[in-house]
Amino acid sequence: MATLIEPRLLKGFRDFLPAAETVRRGLTEKIEATFRSFGFVPIDTPALEYADILLGKGGGETEKQIYRFKDNGGRDVALRFDLTVPFARFVAQHQAELCFPLKRYHIGKVWRGENAQRGRYREFTQCDFDIIGSDSPAADFEILLMIRTVLLNLGTDVSIKINHRGLFNRFLSHIGQREKSVEILRAVDKVAKVGIEETGATLAQLVGDSNAQKILGFTNIVGDPEGETFEQTLGRLTELSGGASPESERLAELGRFALSCGQGGFFTLDPSITRGLDYYTGVVFETFLNELPDIGSVCSGGRYDNLAGLYSKNRISGVGSSVGLDRLIAALESLGKLPGGTSSAPVAIACLKLEDSGLYQALAGQFRKAGLACEVFIEAAEPGGKQLVKQFVLAEKKGLRWMIIPGEKPLQDTFTLRDLAARKNRDGLSVGEAAKIILENRQ
Amino acid sequence: MATLIEPRLLKGFRDFLPAAETVRRGLTEKIEATFRSFGFVPIDTPALEYADILLGKGGGETEKQIYRFKDNGGRDVALRFDLTVPFARFVAQHQAELCFPLKRYHIGKVWRGENAQRGRYREFTQCDFDIIGSDSPAADFEILLMIRTVLLNLGTDVSIKINHRGLFNRFLSHIGQREKSVEILRAVDKVAKVGIEETGATLAQLVGDSNAQKILGFTNIVGDPEGETFEQTLGRLTELSGGASPESERLAELGRFALSCGQGGFFTLDPSITRGLDYYTGVVFETFLNELPDIGSVCSGGRYDNLAGLYSKNRISGVGSSVGLDRLIAALESLGKLPGGTSSAPVAIACLKLEDSGLYQALAGQFRKAGLACEVFIEAAEPGGKQLVKQFVLAEKKGLRWMIIPGEKPLQDTFTLRDLAARKNRDGLSVGEAAKIILENRQ
Repeated sequence: MATLIEPRLLKGFRDFLPAAETVRRGLTEKIEATFRSFGFVPIDTPALEYADILLGKGGGETEKQIYRFKDNGGRDVALRFDLTVPFARFVAQHQAELCFPLKRYHIGKVWRGENAQRGRYREFTQCDFDIIGSDSPAADFEILLMIRTVLLNLGTDVSIKINHRGLFNRFLSHIGQREKSVEILRAVDKVAKVGIEETGATLAQLVGDSNAQKILGFTNIVGDPEGETFEQTLGRLTELSGGASPESERLAELGRFALSCGQGGFFTLDPSITRGLDYYTGVVFETFLNELPDIGSVCSGGRYDNLAGLYSKNRISGVGSSVGLDRLIAALESLGKLPGGTSSAPVAIACLKLEDSGLYQALAGQFRKAGLACEVFIEAAEPGGKQLVKQFVLAEKKGLRWMIIPGEKPLQDTFTLRDLAARKNRDGLSVGEAAKIILENRQ
Repeated sequence: MATLIEPRLLKGFRDFLPAAETVRRGLTEKIEATFRSFGFVPIDTPALEYADILLGKGGGETEKQIYRFKDNGGRDVALRFDLTVPFARFVAQHQAELCFPLKRYHIGKVWRGENAQRGRYREFTQCDFDIIGSDSPAADFEILLMIRTVLLNLGTDVSIKINHRGLFNRFLSHIGQREKSVEILRAVDKVAKVGIEETGATLAQLVGDSNAQKILGFTNIVGDPEGETFEQTLGRLTELSGGASPESERLAELGRFALSCGQGGFFTLDPSITRGLDYYTGVVFETFLNELPDIGSVCSGGRYDNLAGLYSKNRISGVGSSVGLDRLIAALESLGKLPGGTSSAPVAIACLKLEDSGLYQALAGQFRKAGLACEVFIEAAEPGGKQLVKQFVLAEKKGLRWMIIPGEKPLQDTFTLRDLAARKNRDGLSVGEAAKIILENRQ
């Protein structure tokens, strides 16, 4: 006999067993259903692309983390490390075929050779959604509203913290520190992680003590005093940044949209939210679960004014966001808001006589027509019922709640419905009666 | 300004634009719903694995086609080229955690550096389903029945051609040619492609003229004479292979299951179906669309007796199959059985005044609550209505059928529903009335 190959995975990569994968697919289906209810359409792009396309101007962290290699034809190729860069390439390439404004979503795997520690994976699923080809504040608002609706449809509410990169820059100009905005943004972006003292020290080194205090004053303006409205916070930020501006007006409009939509207060102003990336130019935001804010943002994003600049002369602006699926699943799990169970079906038909398997499938077909998934067991029970107990055990292990024990003539006779949870039988039932009981007892 | 990078794809790789991706996702959702209605559960495995795991004993075509490289840590890794090998590794690795018999499906991308010609892609989606950990004929039957149900639920019926590798081997023993079975199987497997004459010539070289004639006689027994039943064909094959055997009994049982399930005739015996792979050891089958048989099998598979032999000492047998998604989509498209349109929503709300965008979203929320996806347009119309026409044009281009033209007070007033296909307006409607009209006119 040949030597066995040890079955194993690369570090940072995961198998999903039926219970976990059932949950993941259920979750992405629900998220996708919400996207579609807003009229968003799906796209897909290849996992593998030319490395120069994915790396763009290249450099930095990305270059170190990307899976890059020569293919059999000697081409310099790489696995995508996010869905944003392929989307930019996609839009540049297919401009003429697309309808603008385009509301698209994209759910797919990405790969990064990061240090695979502490819940960091080398393969993970991203779930991006954007509205491009429009500068309208209604697009910003729709993205924010859709984020809230996605989470509400998953059974949990959120607070979204928003800011405007332009307003922050205006404030920096006002205090004469505009030219250091990138470094300042980077420092401020870390405040939630490293704390206000360390951020203050970093800022003081950059712009001096007095300016550092001004910046901290601006970025910590939120929620101070308690109970302040969106409009009041915005009023103070507007003043600190030198008076009314297109940026403050954009934020004010978003606040009015929320009120007229009957959902005032689901986002608040937080000037410490900066999303430390050069990429964003307008509104930026992060999303926190009200029941579990400490796990961090489950959905972040913002507005950008030149999506496809590396690949096209046409400036295409947009606003978009990305759901952090792994973090969201962990959060919903700890909130007890994920469905359990390994089975796809609530009910199975026990196999009393193997030769009746065709009849069992016909019976199962009647349940499936009634809208109930129904499994057929494929290994026969011994006469006397011992093996039937084994089938009950297997069914429970699979997460099934109900079992049909067919009669002598499976299609003509009534049957017994066993409630595996309650360990109780009900005799003499038809498909219609059993389906009714199962549907009524659905969680 | 920096030089632009030309937006382009690797040869053999594809972007999916909204219309195409909407169709693909719709199709896989329907297929998946059928899998689940039979109690099948999903799994997932990584795209990237150790090369030795994927190549196993390696060699041949696979080695030439696989995307294999050294990762940043110097590991010898490769992209999966099918879902069967990762499944075998998965089962060996997680035996203790899995429930057997396991009915699992797996939908995912695979990569092969094939010559990218004639509809051959280097990245494509596979859709596999298997029952493992059981030798039961009820498992074979369930896989066949599920294939038919999947296609019926997509609006088209199939004929499945089945054979038994063991019965064919028994016949070869009977004529004294058992030791050349692999080469003979390979020759016979090509008969549909190269024709009976070339196959005959190849066989004659292998086993001599007389035996070649016997083999052709056996493999072409199907449908001759016309109207022969499954049982009659099986009777003749049984005789040619030396009398009743466990293999002929297995086939007879499948025939009886189909009859008792009320679906007699959806599979037929065809001894020329051999699936030229060493892998299969029992029943093998191919699936043909009744309305379009010439495109070839859309779903093939069979029974194997040692799934995970490379990675585990435990013999795990099973039966499984794979839907050819690209071929199936092409077929359904040419049969006019694919839904068209780029939009996820049937109805959109026109944007008359940008400042009312919050109200439009609230109105859209009422449609979404009524179960209708509803898009909100985000760019304002000019007073006078010219821009409204532009919104109609955009809506049509997006594949929307209906448009809401809100009243002065979008949430209090009734509104106009425009049928974009008929170019007709209906005034004075409420959400309930409009939703009813839209649902009644759904295709």
